[in-house]
Amino acid sequence: LPSEFDLIERYFNWQQPAKGVAQGVGDDAAILNIPNNQQLVVTTDTLISGVHFPEQTPAHAIGHKSLAVNLSDLAAMGADPAWFTLALTLPEQNPQWLNEFSAGLRSLAEKANIQLVGGDTTKGALSISITAMGLATAQNILLRSTAKDGDLIYVTGTLGDAAAGLAVIQNKLRLNHAEYCIERLNYPQSRHHESSYIRQYATACLDISDGLLADLNHILKASGVGACLDLDSIPLSPALSSLQKEQALQYALNGGDDYELLFTIPADQQQAFEQEVSRRVLVCHAIGKIDESFSGITSSQGRVLVPQGYLHF
Amino acid sequence: LPSEFDLIERYFNWQQPAKGVAQGVGDDAAILNIPNNQQLVVTTDTLISGVHFPEQTPAHAIGHKSLAVNLSDLAAMGADPAWFTLALTLPEQNPQWLNEFSAGLRSLAEKANIQLVGGDTTKGALSISITAMGLATAQNILLRSTAKDGDLIYVTGTLGDAAAGLAVIQNKLRLNHAEYCIERLNYPQSRHHESSYIRQYATACLDISDGLLADLNHILKASGVGACLDLDSIPLSPALSSLQKEQALQYALNGGDDYELLFTIPADQQQAFEQEVSRRVLVCHAIGKIDESFSGITSSQGRVLVPQGYLHF
Repeated sequence: LPSEFDLIERYFNWQQPAKGVAQGVGDDAAILNIPNNQQLVVTTDTLISGVHFPEQTPAHAIGHKSLAVNLSDLAAMGADPAWFTLALTLPEQNPQWLNEFSAGLRSLAEKANIQLVGGDTTKGALSISITAMGLATAQNILLRSTAKDGDLIYVTGTLGDAAAGLAVIQNKLRLNHAEYCIERLNYPQSRHHESSYIRQYATACLDISDGLLADLNHILKASGVGACLDLDSIPLSPALSSLQKEQALQYALNGGDDYELLFTIPADQQQAFEQEVSRRVLVCHAIGKIDESFSGITSSQGRVLVPQGYLHF
Repeated sequence: LPSEFDLIERYFNWQQPAKGVAQGVGDDAAILNIPNNQQLVVTTDTLISGVHFPEQTPAHAIGHKSLAVNLSDLAAMGADPAWFTLALTLPEQNPQWLNEFSAGLRSLAEKANIQLVGGDTTKGALSISITAMGLATAQNILLRSTAKDGDLIYVTGTLGDAAAGLAVIQNKLRLNHAEYCIERLNYPQSRHHESSYIRQYATACLDISDGLLADLNHILKASGVGACLDLDSIPLSPALSSLQKEQALQYALNGGDDYELLFTIPADQQQAFEQEVSRRVLVCHAIGKIDESFSGITSSQGRVLVPQGYLHF
């Protein structure tokens, strides 16, 4: 069996243009150069088999998703991806699994221009911890705590597809376009391209991992405000639109694993932002408004919306 | 049961003087300020129950050791500790276990002046992944690849105690001072104080986690040199000195988990370095010499020394 060192050499030592990497994989630690005018943005996320992805998930998708959920946190902060470390725990050294995992990870890393600079492999129940580091300029950083009364609430993409895909895998739902929803579950797309424009206008931002209502509540609590949502404006994919309206909304409001951005735009910036969106062909929809006179989330029809605490599975 | 957010608030949100932390725990990611003249040094290490520590290890010790092994990598690079993230996977939320783990982690974090800035808790087999970040100035960084012919080889502290402690726990060894060796296994002390002086003189450095011979070989391979070791100079604790010489050497040469620094000092710096060592009361011993005319490691009695590939357990 190859040693840990050989394993890293074989599967995780691909070459990428070094951006500020003075020393990458191979010593006790990596050495990184930070540009003078930028801040370091750091996030970490662990994926456990059977908790964050179904056990039968293809290795290629696991490699993709492990990095994507971390990239999504960087996008939500308004940071550009730079480097990551990988702590990989495996029950056995299966070369085919490692090849596919490594290919899925590498493909996204190259697309997102983020470089693997260190890591660790250990024997145990399958688990992947990635710590991603990004760079941002202070004036473009997006917090959760800075939404303001009167701001418009936006989301990227469509909501609820990943949760519907999971329900299909668990035989709890039959659906047209089921494959599309399973793809959305297995291959979440972090919204870096959108983030690079959103950060120029938004007051607050996060990525939706626990469900729209639960994550919107994080912004509301941190910012000390309430919100009114227009349920008819929640963007749904053709797959979810083929369901009954209430059922589709259930997935869109409470389903996790979307990794779309949820953000707020000041009313006086709305026109400029929407012009930018149409010029750049970005997919963003306004779904409501920050309103101090509410506590929590209310629909525009007056329904009180309480997150149902999506617990992965 | 408390949510992940409550759990982090309750056990991992202690206050520490913020060193360059613009945003700590609580948003999608942490935001860190890097001083202009410094490089970022990043390392990651995972500890798995039953692999990196015996299953009956006290939670306080697990908290300590999880951070200590990462601090040791920073010390080995010549970097000062700054921040860390914690990815904690737990089979259940046991408040007593979490209190003790958190106390062990916090105690070392405060002593080492390193701040917890982010993390993640998930449900699964017990596993702790820490990514530690340090700061260093380029001229003080210590690599593995820069040992030179004629350099003297040094180690800090004493070797083999942790491996002997493990053997005691596994009922493979009876020993005077067994408690001392178990303490060395459970509470490794990273060598930051020593590192801050060593880095001013050393040509190469790493920390001993796999055993003296295996780790010395990493320096030799990376630097393209060989070494001659004086076995009589290997520093042994009173606990190991009470064993037969060959048995004690076996632990010292091949035992893992010591987390002492192994480093090389140019011959013309030896006197200045040893003066510094005696002035600062640092515990360091010369144990051999880098010698291009050897390949691998030879003892001064001419014995070829091959690492026995210590595999934790």
